[in-house]
Amino acid sequence: MIAVRALLFDTFGTVVDWRGGLISRLDEWGKARGIAADWPNLVDRWRMAYPPSMQRVRTGEREWAVLDVLQRESLQQLVIELGIPGLDDTAADEMVRMWHELPPWPDSVAGLQRLRTRYVIAPLSNGQVALLVRMAKTAGLPWDAIFGADLFRHYKPDPETYFGATSLLGCEPHEVMLVASHPSDLDAAAKCGLRTCHVSRPLEYGAGRMVEATPEPGRFDMTVDSLEALASALGC
Amino acid sequence: MIAVRALLFDTFGTVVDWRGGLISRLDEWGKARGIAADWPNLVDRWRMAYPPSMQRVRTGEREWAVLDVLQRESLQQLVIELGIPGLDDTAADEMVRMWHELPPWPDSVAGLQRLRTRYVIAPLSNGQVALLVRMAKTAGLPWDAIFGADLFRHYKPDPETYFGATSLLGCEPHEVMLVASHPSDLDAAAKCGLRTCHVSRPLEYGAGRMVEATPEPGRFDMTVDSLEALASALGC
Repeated sequence: MIAVRALLFDTFGTVVDWRGGLISRLDEWGKARGIAADWPNLVDRWRMAYPPSMQRVRTGEREWAVLDVLQRESLQQLVIELGIPGLDDTAADEMVRMWHELPPWPDSVAGLQRLRTRYVIAPLSNGQVALLVRMAKTAGLPWDAIFGADLFRHYKPDPETYFGATSLLGCEPHEVMLVASHPSDLDAAAKCGLRTCHVSRPLEYGAGRMVEATPEPGRFDMTVDSLEALASALGC
Repeated sequence: MIAVRALLFDTFGTVVDWRGGLISRLDEWGKARGIAADWPNLVDRWRMAYPPSMQRVRTGEREWAVLDVLQRESLQQLVIELGIPGLDDTAADEMVRMWHELPPWPDSVAGLQRLRTRYVIAPLSNGQVALLVRMAKTAGLPWDAIFGADLFRHYKPDPETYFGATSLLGCEPHEVMLVASHPSDLDAAAKCGLRTCHVSRPLEYGAGRMVEATPEPGRFDMTVDSLEALASALGC
C-alpha cells in the first residue's frame, strides 16, 4: 500500500466523459434549436484545439486566461472552419458551459466516495474553480477541496500546479498521488515528486480509438482500470 | 428572497464552536498528559491574540504566514506568560492542530446540507486551506469549495479575500452573500459589494459573555440565529 495522504485527480477524461457527454448533450441541444452538425467531429476537433490553446498561455505567447475563454476562442475558429449555420454568440456560450456539466464515468462517484473515507481527494484540473464546482454539483463528485488552474495562473503540466496543490494541502509532494488517464500529466507530476496512478479510460476518445499509448508496466506507481479498483487497491 | 448564487461562510465562531471545542479537547488532552492549566483562560487569551497577529501581516509589519504559524507564535508567548509547565514543542504543535478539528454548532451541518441544494457554499476563512479541509472532514461540513486565506495571501477583512473568492466562483460580488457572526467581517464584505447575513452566536465567547454588540436592525441584509433558520428563510 502506498503511504499517501491525499489524492489529486485529473478531471477531463479521468473522472468525467467529456466526449460522450458533449456529443449526447449537443445532439439533444441541436435538435431543440434546429442546428444540425457533425457533433462528434466538432467535439474531436474542439478537443484537439485544447492543448495548443493552453500551450500559448504556458509559453507566455498570450497572457493568462481561464479555460472557458480559451475554449470559446477555439470554438469560434472551429465554427468558421466547419461552417455550421445558426451558431451565434449565445449558442457558443451555451456550448462552452457544457464542459461544466460533463457526466462522470460509471465508476467515478462510487470510487471517490470510498476513497474519501481514507484520503483527502480533490481535482487538479486545467478547468477553472467555478467550472469544477459546477461539475462537482451536477455530477455528484464528493471532493474535499477544488484545485483549478486559476488558483495558480498556470496550466498543467507546469510544475506550479502540482507544487501549488500539494502546498495548499499542507503536504510534501511524496505524500500526494496524482490519478490521471494521461501519461504526460503523470510524468510531469512524477518530476515534481508526486506519486502517480494511471487509470485506463479506453472510451475517452471514442470506442476503438486509442489516442494515447498504454503506458509500459512500472512507469507509474499504480495502474488501475477504474476509481473503484483504485479504492479496492488502497483498502478503502 | 435574496437573489444570490453562492454563500460564503466565516468559520471560527460562525460554523464551528472554537471556544467550547478547544476547552473540552484541552481538558481531556491535559488529563491524559498530566498537564494542568486554566484552559478557559488560555483559550480566551489565545483568541485575543488572534486579531493582532493577523493585523501585523495585514499592515505589512511581518511577511505572509499561514494561520497555524501565527497561532503557534501566539501560543508560545502565552505559555511563557501563564507559566504552564510541561508544554513542550510537541504539545504546542498538537494544540495548534486542535483548531483544525473544532466541533460544528448543532445547526451547522443540517443547515449547510439544506443550503447546498440551492446554492454553492464555501468557507471564506482566515484559516489556511489545509486546516479547512481537515475541519470539513472531521466536522462533516459539506462544502462545495474551500477558500482559505492562503489562496489570497491576505487576511480578512482585506478586500482581496472577498473579491478573490467571488472571482474564483465566477460571480459578481452582489451575487454572493457572506454569512458571519462578526459584524466587522460583514461590514468589510458589504464594502466590496457582497450581500450580508448576520448569524447570532450568543455562546461563541462562553455563556453570558457578549464580546461583540448585537448589530442594529437593518445593518445587514439578513439576520438569523442559526444556519437552519437561514436555510428556511432562503426556501431550502
